[in-house]
Amino acid sequence: MPDSLPEFRFHHFALSVPDLEESIAWFGAKLGFTEEWRMDNAMIPAKVAFLKRGPHRVELFEAPGAAPLPADRRDMQADPRTHGNKHVAFEVDDIRGLFDEFRRRDVDIVNVLDRPWATIGFIRDNAGNLIEFVQPK
Amino acid sequence: MPDSLPEFRFHHFALSVPDLEESIAWFGAKLGFTEEWRMDNAMIPAKVAFLKRGPHRVELFEAPGAAPLPADRRDMQADPRTHGNKHVAFEVDDIRGLFDEFRRRDVDIVNVLDRPWATIGFIRDNAGNLIEFVQPK
Repeated sequence: MPDSLPEFRFHHFALSVPDLEESIAWFGAKLGFTEEWRMDNAMIPAKVAFLKRGPHRVELFEAPGAAPLPADRRDMQADPRTHGNKHVAFEVDDIRGLFDEFRRRDVDIVNVLDRPWATIGFIRDNAGNLIEFVQPK
Repeated sequence: MPDSLPEFRFHHFALSVPDLEESIAWFGAKLGFTEEWRMDNAMIPAKVAFLKRGPHRVELFEAPGAAPLPADRRDMQADPRTHGNKHVAFEVDDIRGLFDEFRRRDVDIVNVLDRPWATIGFIRDNAGNLIEFVQPK
């Protein structure tokens, strides 16, 4: 049956954040995302913004009174110990160069690791959310 | 500074699931993902599998003793009320046709909604994780 499915393309990943403006500023300064549009979402009571970089987007929610990020979600080893949606990962051609640039931009770098299949690296955004980068071997 | 960043491409999204085999079967039967490889991850004590569909991958973790999915994470309206990484969304050309196919495949459909900027639809995987599809207008 898989052949009766249409193609699909990555559109966005979503984050719930404590401060929409601070996150817009961080994704702009550190990862080069630009604001596409924003709205007040009546269905989910929250301020929502879409940021875009090439074909990729991040959807940011600022929901009044939202619970803070659980501490284990900041930790790449502890995070999978609760079921659910986790990080997204982006492929790059030169992960060492990218992380050198992240250092220049004062990004919160978790690690850069050689794995049998790839070199991988994790960062945290300004709100502590894990984001991964991958350079396959 | 954004112009000194390299291009990056979506590589994968990660899920922590209760049963690796059941999730591999679900992503195969419902979304057409095929197994790329699997390993036992010594750094994060868990069974790990990568599934692939075109250029997209999902990384599945089965961590022994992991906490179950928090109930609000199954609910697209409640989920953003805790900070953190949320759903991913894939763009398609014909979301109504895709969701017709999901109905034929007995996928857990949350909704299909007309929004000013797109028609969007959410499903849940076999473990309750939200996944979004988008057909922009």
